[in-house]
Amino acid sequence: MNMEIFALGGYGVVGRNMTAVKVGDEVVILDMGIHLPNYIKINEDQETLKSSLTRKHLIQEKVVPDDSLIEDIRKQVIAIIPTHAHLDHIGAIPYMAGRYNAPIVCTPFAGEVIKAILKDDGIKIPNPIKTLNPGASMKLSKNITVEFIPITHSTPQTVIIILKTPAGNLLYSNDFKLDNSPTLGRKPDYERLKELGEQGIKVAIIDSLYASTKAKTPSEMVARDMLADVLLNMDTKGKGIIVTTFASHIARLKSIIEMGEKLNRKIVFIGRSLAKYCYAAENAGIYKFSDKVEMTKFSKRVKQFFGKISKEGKHKYLLVVTGHQGEPQSTLSKMVRGVHDFPFDANDHVVFSSNVIPSPINLKNRQDLEDQLRARAVRLFTDVHVSGHGSREDMRELVNLIKPQHVIPSHSPPERIQSYIELAEEQGYKNGFTVHGMMEGQRLIID
Amino acid sequence: MNMEIFALGGYGVVGRNMTAVKVGDEVVILDMGIHLPNYIKINEDQETLKSSLTRKHLIQEKVVPDDSLIEDIRKQVIAIIPTHAHLDHIGAIPYMAGRYNAPIVCTPFAGEVIKAILKDDGIKIPNPIKTLNPGASMKLSKNITVEFIPITHSTPQTVIIILKTPAGNLLYSNDFKLDNSPTLGRKPDYERLKELGEQGIKVAIIDSLYASTKAKTPSEMVARDMLADVLLNMDTKGKGIIVTTFASHIARLKSIIEMGEKLNRKIVFIGRSLAKYCYAAENAGIYKFSDKVEMTKFSKRVKQFFGKISKEGKHKYLLVVTGHQGEPQSTLSKMVRGVHDFPFDANDHVVFSSNVIPSPINLKNRQDLEDQLRARAVRLFTDVHVSGHGSREDMRELVNLIKPQHVIPSHSPPERIQSYIELAEEQGYKNGFTVHGMMEGQRLIID
Amino acid sequence: MNMEIFALGGYGVVGRNMTAVKVGDEVVILDMGIHLPNYIKINEDQETLKSSLTRKHLIQEKVVPDDSLIEDIRKQVIAIIPTHAHLDHIGAIPYMAGRYNAPIVCTPFAGEVIKAILKDDGIKIPNPIKTLNPGASMKLSKNITVEFIPITHSTPQTVIIILKTPAGNLLYSNDFKLDNSPTLGRKPDYERLKELGEQGIKVAIIDSLYASTKAKTPSEMVARDMLADVLLNMDTKGKGIIVTTFASHIARLKSIIEMGEKLNRKIVFIGRSLAKYCYAAENAGIYKFSDKVEMTKFSKRVKQFFGKISKEGKHKYLLVVTGHQGEPQSTLSKMVRGVHDFPFDANDHVVFSSNVIPSPINLKNRQDLEDQLRARAVRLFTDVHVSGHGSREDMRELVNLIKPQHVIPSHSPPERIQSYIELAEEQGYKNGFTVHGMMEGQRLIID
Amino acid sequence: MNMEIFALGGYGVVGRNMTAVKVGDEVVILDMGIHLPNYIKINEDQETLKSSLTRKHLIQEKVVPDDSLIEDIRKQVIAIIPTHAHLDHIGAIPYMAGRYNAPIVCTPFAGEVIKAILKDDGIKIPNPIKTLNPGASMKLSKNITVEFIPITHSTPQTVIIILKTPAGNLLYSNDFKLDNSPTLGRKPDYERLKELGEQGIKVAIIDSLYASTKAKTPSEMVARDMLADVLLNMDTKGKGIIVTTFASHIARLKSIIEMGEKLNRKIVFIGRSLAKYCYAAENAGIYKFSDKVEMTKFSKRVKQFFGKISKEGKHKYLLVVTGHQGEPQSTLSKMVRGVHDFPFDANDHVVFSSNVIPSPINLKNRQDLEDQLRARAVRLFTDVHVSGHGSREDMRELVNLIKPQHVIPSHSPPERIQSYIELAEEQGYKNGFTVHGMMEGQRLIID
Repeated sequence: MNMEIFALGGYGVVGRNMTAVKVGDEVVILDMGIHLPNYIKINEDQETLKSSLTRKHLIQEKVVPDDSLIEDIRKQVIAIIPTHAHLDHIGAIPYMAGRYNAPIVCTPFAGEVIKAILKDDGIKIPNPIKTLNPGASMKLSKNITVEFIPITHSTPQTVIIILKTPAGNLLYSNDFKLDNSPTLGRKPDYERLKELGEQGIKVAIIDSLYASTKAKTPSEMVARDMLADVLLNMDTKGKGIIVTTFASHIARLKSIIEMGEKLNRKIVFIGRSLAKYCYAAENAGIYKFSDKVEMTKFSKRVKQFFGKISKEGKHKYLLVVTGHQGEPQSTLSKMVRGVHDFPFDANDHVVFSSNVIPSPINLKNRQDLEDQLRARAVRLFTDVHVSGHGSREDMRELVNLIKPQHVIPSHSPPERIQSYIELAEEQGYKNGFTVHGMMEGQRLIID
Repeated sequence: MNMEIFALGGYGVVGRNMTAVKVGDEVVILDMGIHLPNYIKINEDQETLKSSLTRKHLIQEKVVPDDSLIEDIRKQVIAIIPTHAHLDHIGAIPYMAGRYNAPIVCTPFAGEVIKAILKDDGIKIPNPIKTLNPGASMKLSKNITVEFIPITHSTPQTVIIILKTPAGNLLYSNDFKLDNSPTLGRKPDYERLKELGEQGIKVAIIDSLYASTKAKTPSEMVARDMLADVLLNMDTKGKGIIVTTFASHIARLKSIIEMGEKLNRKIVFIGRSLAKYCYAAENAGIYKFSDKVEMTKFSKRVKQFFGKISKEGKHKYLLVVTGHQGEPQSTLSKMVRGVHDFPFDANDHVVFSSNVIPSPINLKNRQDLEDQLRARAVRLFTDVHVSGHGSREDMRELVNLIKPQHVIPSHSPPERIQSYIELAEEQGYKNGFTVHGMMEGQRLIID
Repeated sequence: MNMEIFALGGYGVVGRNMTAVKVGDEVVILDMGIHLPNYIKINEDQETLKSSLTRKHLIQEKVVPDDSLIEDIRKQVIAIIPTHAHLDHIGAIPYMAGRYNAPIVCTPFAGEVIKAILKDDGIKIPNPIKTLNPGASMKLSKNITVEFIPITHSTPQTVIIILKTPAGNLLYSNDFKLDNSPTLGRKPDYERLKELGEQGIKVAIIDSLYASTKAKTPSEMVARDMLADVLLNMDTKGKGIIVTTFASHIARLKSIIEMGEKLNRKIVFIGRSLAKYCYAAENAGIYKFSDKVEMTKFSKRVKQFFGKISKEGKHKYLLVVTGHQGEPQSTLSKMVRGVHDFPFDANDHVVFSSNVIPSPINLKNRQDLEDQLRARAVRLFTDVHVSGHGSREDMRELVNLIKPQHVIPSHSPPERIQSYIELAEEQGYKNGFTVHGMMEGQRLIID
Repeated sequence: MNMEIFALGGYGVVGRNMTAVKVGDEVVILDMGIHLPNYIKINEDQETLKSSLTRKHLIQEKVVPDDSLIEDIRKQVIAIIPTHAHLDHIGAIPYMAGRYNAPIVCTPFAGEVIKAILKDDGIKIPNPIKTLNPGASMKLSKNITVEFIPITHSTPQTVIIILKTPAGNLLYSNDFKLDNSPTLGRKPDYERLKELGEQGIKVAIIDSLYASTKAKTPSEMVARDMLADVLLNMDTKGKGIIVTTFASHIARLKSIIEMGEKLNRKIVFIGRSLAKYCYAAENAGIYKFSDKVEMTKFSKRVKQFFGKISKEGKHKYLLVVTGHQGEPQSTLSKMVRGVHDFPFDANDHVVFSSNVIPSPINLKNRQDLEDQLRARAVRLFTDVHVSGHGSREDMRELVNLIKPQHVIPSHSPPERIQSYIELAEEQGYKNGFTVHGMMEGQRLIID
C-alpha cells in the first residue's frame, strides 16, 4: 500500500507548517500553522477588519498554507494533529480547520492554547478538540493509530507524532531538540524511539532548521546559567530589572521566577500574550504561576501596576514583559516611549532572554527599541538564550536512533533542505531514492 | 502523451547542469556539466591520477550529476544537447557521455571546445559530435526535433534549446540574459521566441540564478564602457597594464583588444585556457585573434615572452592573462610570485574584468593574490564586469514573451528557486500546478 | 607657522561633516552638515516641535557636529565654506551658523539650496551668503584666500576647496569622484590641481568613503546607459513608468528627461524635495527644468495631477517621484498605499535610480515599499545607479596628482580610515608622521 | 605633571599590542605583541629564513608594532610589562625587546611562555625577566610602581596593570572579562579595583574588542557545561573522540581532562604548541598535566603514539590535538590527510572547543578541514566555546567600578573604538575631553 505525502506548508520556508498524509482513502493532517512575519505584516499594513481574515485572503498573503492541493480529498481527512503550541503549528486552525470534518488531536497544553486563541479572536470552529498526553496513543480509525512521543523544544508538551498505518509507520518530528538537562518536563523518550526504530519506520519528516549548524544545540540549562550570571552577578542594587522572553517558553519563565526569588524581588508579568500562555500552562497542570507571580493582561490594570511599582520603588520588583522583538505595541516598547509610566534611570537592567528573528521588520523594531533604551543609558543584556531547535548533530543522533527507510526534511529555508540531504547522505541515504527534498506544493508517493 | 522531466543536476545547486526529458520511449539529455568548485577541490586535495577520475568517483564527490535516476532508461537516450561552451554545461561529457549511445548536438563553438577538452584530457568518447548553428533545426528522430534559438550570455553561440515532441514543445534556456547591445554576435531572436510562444510551449526550464535581483542585468556594452574608462582615462604612461578575464568570454576579450589598439600597445595573451577558447572561437569563425594578438599556451614559450617584454619595456604591452579567481597555477599568480620574470613596479595597473565566484577557496586565493599585488603597490581595478546571467526582469520579460504552460526554475541555489516561484506567481502561475520547484534527484510528470 | 585641524564631524562616521582650520588667530570652517539617519530618527520618534530643534539638543542626538571643541576660538572664525549642496555638508547651517560671526562662502547652487532650506524651515540666520563660482578665488582676510576647483560628484557645482594660508596651502576634497565623462558640467580640473600640487600643498583632507573598494568608480555615463537600457529596451507599451532618484542629482534627472522625450511621454516631477533642488538648479543657471517638465510641490495640486494622469492614461506619462529610500511620506509610498490615486497594474515599471543607504530604517522602509509594489506585480528595476564617491583608485590618482605633504582621510566609518591609511602608505606616506587617521573630537597640529 | 600615551600597536587593529606611557623622563612599555594573521602570512608566503625576521622587516609587514614613534625616548624606557601570555601581547619581545635597556616584568606563567618561545626560536635577548605574582607590587624606579590586579581571561595569570606615577595612576586592562565562575584561578579582585578607583585613576586603557555586543560575556563555566553535554551525553560508544582547542587555554584543557576521566578514556595531548603551554603552566605551578595526560611534542614520538592508539583501539582514548583554525601543519589536519595514521570512521566525534578567528586564511583552512572530515562522515561539534573577552556590559561594570578620569579604548578594530566611545558617553564621559579614541601612530598628552 502507498503512502502519499503532501507538502502543503513549511517546506522551503520557515512557518505555516502543514503536511497531509494519505493512506488508502484516509488522510491525516499534521500541523496547521501560520507564517508569523506575514501575519504581522497584514495586521500592520492595513486596518484589517477581523472579518477580512478569510482563508482565501490569508492564502494569497502567504500567511496560511495553501491547501488547495488536497481539495479533492478534503472529505477523507480524519484528524488534524499539531505537534505543539507554537503559532506556526496551530495558528491557522481558526481559519482553516472548519473546512475539514475532523477532530483536532493534541496535547492538553496545545489544546488550552488553541482554545485561548479562538476565544481571543472571537472565532468558533466546529471541530472537537481531543487531548492526548505525551507518551499516550489513540486510535484515529480502524486502520490508523497516533502515538505522541515526548520530545524537548522551547514550549511544554512538544511531541513527536507517530502514525501507525497499513502502509507502515510515519514519524513526524517538527520541531525538536535533544535536551538531556531540561529545566521543565522530561527528557526525550530515547527508549521508545529506539523501540519504534527497531519495529520499522517507513518515513520520517524532520525539522531541519539548523541542519547546517555543525553542533549539538546547548541544553536549556545553559540558558538558565547565563540568566543566573546576568541577574545574580551584576550590580543591580537600587536598579530596575526588566526581563523579556517568549511568552510560550514556560521553562524559561520558570527560571526567571527562580532568579527573582533569589533576588528577593516581587515578580510581575505584564502583557497580554504572557497571560495567555501562563494560564494555559496552569490549566494544563504544568506550572503554577499564580502562586509566585502577580500577572495582568488587561490594559486598565496595567496602569495601576505601574503606579504601584513607582510608589513602592522599582528596585523591589523584577518585571517580566512582552517586547523581545521590539514590537511597538508590546509592554516594553510602551514603557520606554512613556505610554506606560515607568521611571527609567541610567544603569537599569533590561534582559532580552531571546534571539531576534531576523526579518526586516523585527530588525528595525529591535533597533528602534534598543536605541530608545540606550538613549536612557539603560544596560542591555541581549541573546541570553539558547534555541529550541536541534542542530546538525541532534538530527544525526535522531536519525541514527530511529533508522527510517525514508527521510524528508521540513521546517527550513531551501538551502537547509540541501544541508539535511547532505547529512542524510553521510548516513547512507540516497537523494531522490531514500531522502527527499520537498518544496511547498509538492506531493510524494512512497510505496 | 506525458512529458517526464528528470532533474539530474543543477537544481538547488549552481553547477553540474543536466536534465533528461522523456517522451514516449525516447529520452533527450540537456547539458552535461561539472560542478567547478568541487572539480577544483578534488584536483587540489590529492595528487589525483587522471585515471582515478571515474564517473563513479566524480558522482560521489558531487563533481558530475548523479545520473543513476535514469539508469533504467539509459538505452533510450537519442541525443545529448548542451546549450553552450561553459564547463558547467559540457564539462562532464568526457566522463559520462560514453554511457549513452547517442550523439552530442551542439553549436560549432561548443563543439570546438568539447574537442579541445577531450584532447587536453587525453580522453576518447564514442559519441559523434554533430554541430547545429544558432537559428537552425535538426530532426533527432521521427518524433523529436531540436531547434537552437540565439540568445545572449557570456560566451558565444549560446542558445535556447527547443524540443518539439509529440507531448508538446519544451523550451530550455539555461543560461541566458537579454542583451540588446551585445558587443559580439546578435541580439536575442525575440521574433522567433514570440512565434514559438504563440504556437504553444508546454514546459519551459529557465536559468533562475538571479531571480531575486530586482533589476535587468546591464548590457555587455556597459562592461565595455567601464573597461574603456579604466584603461583609457587613467595615468598609465610608462606603466605595465595587465588584464585578466574569463577565457571563454570572447566578447570581452575583443573589447580588451580594441582598447589595447587605442593605447598603441602590443597585445599578448598568456595562459593555457585563454589559448584553448580563442583557438576554438577562431576555428568556429567567430573572431580572428591571430591577426591582432600574440598568444602562447606552452610553458616553454612563456619564458621567452616575459624575457622579450622585459627587454622591450612593459609599457609597450598590454598583457591579458589567466588568474581572475586568484588560482595559484595561473599566469598572474606566477607573475607576482616571481615564477615568471615580470618586473612589477608601483602604480602598474592590474584589471580584473571579472567578478569573484564566492567559494571559500576563491575568496582565499583572490585575497592572497591581491595582497601580494598590493605589497608591490600595484593599482587594482576589480569588478570591471557585468554578469552574463539575466536578473528578475530579464526573466519576467522572457516568460511574458513565450507564455509557457509550465515553468521550472533551474541553475540556482534553493532560495532562488523560491524567488523564481514567486516571480511566476506574480505572472499568474500556481505553485505545484504550473510552476514547479525541483531539486536534484526529483522527477516530474506533466500530462 | 602652525596649521591646526579640528576634526569636528564626519571623521569615523558618515555624515555631519565639519572641520575647522586654524592658522594664526584666524579660523575657517569647512562644511557644516547633518547626520541624515539621525535627523530622520528624531523627526520620526517624536512629534518634534520645530522650536525644540536647538543646537544643543541636536548635538546630543548626534544630528549635528559637536563644535564645543572650538568654543574658545569661536570669535576667530572668518568664514564657513561648504563644498556642495548635500545636507551632510550644509544641513547644520540653520542650527549652528548663527553662533559664528562669519559669512557663508559657497557656489551659486549651494547658495540657492541653503536659502531654500532656511525658507522651508522658517529659520533666519545673520550670516551673509557670498557666492563664488567653481574655478574662482576670493580673499577671506589679509592672510587667507579660498579657491574653488571644479570636481565631479552627484550634485552640481561640487568643488575642492583650496585654502591659501601663511602656514601653507590646505586642500579639502570632501566629496569627490573623478568622472571623465560627466553628463552635466565639466570634468575635474586636472591641470589646476597639478599646478597647485607643484606649488606645494601642506595638508589634504580627502573623502575616503570607498577607500577599500579596489576600483575606479564608473562614470555617470554608465548610469545613463543603464537607464536607457531599462527605459528604452523593455516592453513598456501601455504601462506606467515611474522613476525615483535623488532630488539633488540634477545630472541624473536630466538623463531621465532625455529618455522620457525619446519615449514621447510627458514628464512630470512630483514631490517637495524634487521641486526644491530643481528650482535651485534653475536659479543657479544650471538646467532649465521648466521648459521640459511639469512640476509641483504643493500637496493640493498633487491631487489634480493624479486626476489628470488617470484621465489621460498613465501610459502617456513618465513620472519622476520622491521615495527612493522607501520613505513613508514620499510620493511613491503614498501612491502605492492609495493616498494618492494612481491606478497600478501588473507589469507597470518602477525604476529606482539610486542605491539604498543601508541604515535599518531605510532597509525596513524599502522592503515595505518593494513588498507593496510586488503585491501589485509591478516590475522593479533597482540600483540603476553609480555612486558619486570615488573608489580607491580615484583616491590614488588624486593623491599622485597633488602630492600633498600630509593627508587626512575624512567622510568615512573608522575601518575606511584604516584603508585610506594603507593606501597612503603604498604611496610612501608614514602613519602618524605624514598620514593622520583622525576621529571626531580630535585636534592635530601640523608645523 | 603630564602623562603622555603613545598608541604604538593594537589601536584600530586587533593584534600587535603595544603602548608606551611617559611620565617625566621615564617611559614604561605595556605589551609587545605580534599580529598573528600577518605573522602566519609571512611564514606561509615565503620560505622565510628565521634570520630574515628582523624588526624592520616585521614592522613593514605589520607583524610587530611600529615603535619609531618613540625612537627619541628609547633610552628612557625602564620596563616592558605584558599583561598575559598570549602572542599578541608578548610575541614581539624576541624581535624588539633588545632595543630597550629594560627588564621584562610579568607573571610567572607569562615568563615561562616567553622563555619557551625564545628557546624555540633560538633567539637570545639581553633583557632580564622579572616575575611578579597577580596581586603583588614592584617598584620600577624611585617614582614609578607597578601593581598586578588578578583578572579573568582565556589564559592563566592575566592581570590588569596599575602604574602609580607622579602624574597619577594609570590602569591598563588589556585583555579581560568579568568571570564570576572561573573554572581555574580566582575571580577578578573587585575589592582592590574599587579601592584603587576611590584613590583615583587618571587614565584607563581598556580592551574594547566587543564594545558593540550588548551583553555580558558568559562564564567559562558555560563552556564547561556545553563540553560536558557534547562529550558525555552523545552516543560515543566505540567511536573516536578528538578535541581541539587553544593551547594557551589551560582552564579549558583542565575541563576536557575532567570529562575524559568521566568517560574512562586515556587522555593524550598531541602537538607542539600544546606541550609548550602545558609545560609552562606546570612550571608556573598552575596545573599538573603530567599526572593525568600523556603528552608529546616531538614528531618522532607522534608516530609511535598513533601506532599505539590504533593497536589498543581508539575508543579507549580521548585525543586533544592542535588544529582548531584548520592550520594545514596541525595534528588534526595531518590526521585527516593521512600524514598521521589515524583510522577515521563514520560517526567519530571531533569537537572544536574554539571559535574561528575570521581571517580569509582561517576561513579557508577550516572549511577545507571540515570538508575533509565530513567526507569521512565524522560528527563535528563546533563553537563549543565562550570568549575570553568581555562584552559591553563587562566594560560598563568595570568603568563604573574604577571611575577613571580619562578612558582610552584599545584592542579593537576602528568601529569598536567608536562603540566604546558611545558607551563612555552613556556613563558621562565626553568625546575628545575625557574619552579618547586613538589609532596607531597617535600620541596623547594628559595633564
